[in-house]
Amino acid sequence: MRILSGVRPTGKPHVGNYIGALKNWKKLQEEGNECFYFVADWHALTTAYSETDELKTFTREVMRSFLACGLNPEKSILFVQSAIKEHSELALLFSMIVPISWLERVPTYKEMRQQLSDKDLSNAGFLLYPVLQAADILMYLAEGVPVGEDQTYHVELTREIARRFNYIYGETFPEPKTLLSIIPKLPGTDGRKMSKSYGNTIPLENTLSNLEKSILPMMTDPARKRRTDPGNPEKCPVWDYHKAFEINDEESQWVIEGCTKAKIGCIDCKKLLIKNMKKELEPIWIGYAKIDSDPHYVDDIMEEGNKRARFVAQNTMNLVREKMHLLF
Amino acid sequence: MRILSGVRPTGKPHVGNYIGALKNWKKLQEEGNECFYFVADWHALTTAYSETDELKTFTREVMRSFLACGLNPEKSILFVQSAIKEHSELALLFSMIVPISWLERVPTYKEMRQQLSDKDLSNAGFLLYPVLQAADILMYLAEGVPVGEDQTYHVELTREIARRFNYIYGETFPEPKTLLSIIPKLPGTDGRKMSKSYGNTIPLENTLSNLEKSILPMMTDPARKRRTDPGNPEKCPVWDYHKAFEINDEESQWVIEGCTKAKIGCIDCKKLLIKNMKKELEPIWIGYAKIDSDPHYVDDIMEEGNKRARFVAQNTMNLVREKMHLLF
Ligand code: SF4
Ligand code: SF4
Repeated sequence: MRILSGVRPTGKPHVGNYIGALKNWKKLQEEGNECFYFVADWHALTTAYSETDELKTFTREVMRSFLACGLNPEKSILFVQSAIKEHSELALLFSMIVPISWLERVPTYKEMRQQLSDKDLSNAGFLLYPVLQAADILMYLAEGVPVGEDQTYHVELTREIARRFNYIYGETFPEPKTLLSIIPKLPGTDGRKMSKSYGNTIPLENTLSNLEKSILPMMTDPARKRRTDPGNPEKCPVWDYHKAFEINDEESQWVIEGCTKAKIGCIDCKKLLIKNMKKELEPIWIGYAKIDSDPHYVDDIMEEGNKRARFVAQNTMNLVREKMHLLF
Repeated sequence: MRILSGVRPTGKPHVGNYIGALKNWKKLQEEGNECFYFVADWHALTTAYSETDELKTFTREVMRSFLACGLNPEKSILFVQSAIKEHSELALLFSMIVPISWLERVPTYKEMRQQLSDKDLSNAGFLLYPVLQAADILMYLAEGVPVGEDQTYHVELTREIARRFNYIYGETFPEPKTLLSIIPKLPGTDGRKMSKSYGNTIPLENTLSNLEKSILPMMTDPARKRRTDPGNPEKCPVWDYHKAFEINDEESQWVIEGCTKAKIGCIDCKKLLIKNMKKELEPIWIGYAKIDSDPHYVDDIMEEGNKRARFVAQNTMNLVREKMHLLF
């Protein structure tokens, strides 16, 4: 299956990005799918057009993290959105056939404008965001799009745009499926939503001692004030981390019983988490170090991936321009 | 002065297009300005996305008419919008910083949606039209934009976008001036608004006998039912044509007196018009014929003009990407 997904370079990747996306992307790659993964730097502008000082750095960092996490440039096409100018052309052409009402009724539109009230989201780019996203997806004739629950409407809109284009100009685009991944949402270390601005994230690139410094003071079930107070894992962010980092049945049993019956201390519980996180994350830390041994590696990989993506994009655009009777 | 203007390829050019734009463009060229003139084929989609069967033909026809009218590829850069993909990229980037409210308050926006009620203008592309136009203009760092009165707000919006970009990302774009040309609006041969859909246009590419067939039955001042009824040129579309086709003072006198005192017939008046139109249009008719003697000429000119425009556009985009800290 041809799969496409992207991530916005709004900061240095943290473990939330790994659990929420990259881990699943790698799985899809290993299952033998033809995967297109990209750094969505233009999308980053839709919500942060005025904070671009580090955009270049973050774009490279995200690509570096793709590689560190085991996304394999021999198996998957790894590219940067802004390098494939065809995305802007297709988005422009789609804007001609997409009614504004379709965009205004995107459930996340009003929601995000309320949530992110500290940001200026009154810009046209934010309204047009799903059109650019449809261009990203349909450009590669993707059949599957792995998304979290809050993004399902966007893929539905992409299907509507594909249908409308096919109806007006003749059969061109397949309708991509939503690959809903039941992804455990990782909270921040303070139990709130994980967000750079709260300072409660854990960097993906890390060392064991820094990981310990993040995990050991983590917020737990407030009921366990003392070692002897029983707790409830369901009320504890540490437990969310345990589930995300593939705790096994035996360990699981140990935590649940130990917590609810006050048999273990939170520090014991966190030490187990650190052990499991280290097991999964250490290969990624090593991956980062390896990548850095060749200072040109990330740029070379990007260039190669961009070239391969552009080739597919150009084929699609040739078809689109022909269907729309554009001279160029 | 660096000047930019474009025309939408919505049909074969007619004398209204000549009087309303091309004639003035040639004048600006001859005055020694550095002119960029383009066929705005993407803009044609904003109001007619579903009628693209002849888009290629019309795009070529408009370029052919540029040449026939004396726009000189040695002096001016003649290009096609869709060939310069940078326009879509810059429009996308501008959409990130343009508040939707700026677009909704464009005076022509609501007006055109009412006027063109037979067209579907609920598409996002129609709302975004001034953003694409700003990209067209600022891409070439144009200093002057010749427009009719109904387009002045668009140039003002372009200035606002330039200012906003400069404010956020640092000095980049000059603010283009509006070159308001007092262009006589040519009515159709039936006195109504000139429009392809009314069938009241006069093709720019023409023969004398066909021109006669268009002009002789033209609608005149309804008061002149008989030769002996006095008329009023101000109420007659033929008079609008006379003024557009540079009637001289003596002839002017003759028409006004002849009409108001019923000394001349409308046919006499129209014959004078035909004579004057022929004088101005015949070089253009010959131009068309000359162009056709080399079947590759139009395509070659287009390719060359596109290359030159692209060179300028790429320089601008390099600057823009650097200012916005985009990696590509
Ligand atoms: S024992 Fe573990 S699950 Fe229970 S409150 Fe402490 S850290 Fe959380
Ligand atoms: S004489 Fe000329 S200006 Fe007067 S009504 Fe006839 S055509 Fe019109």
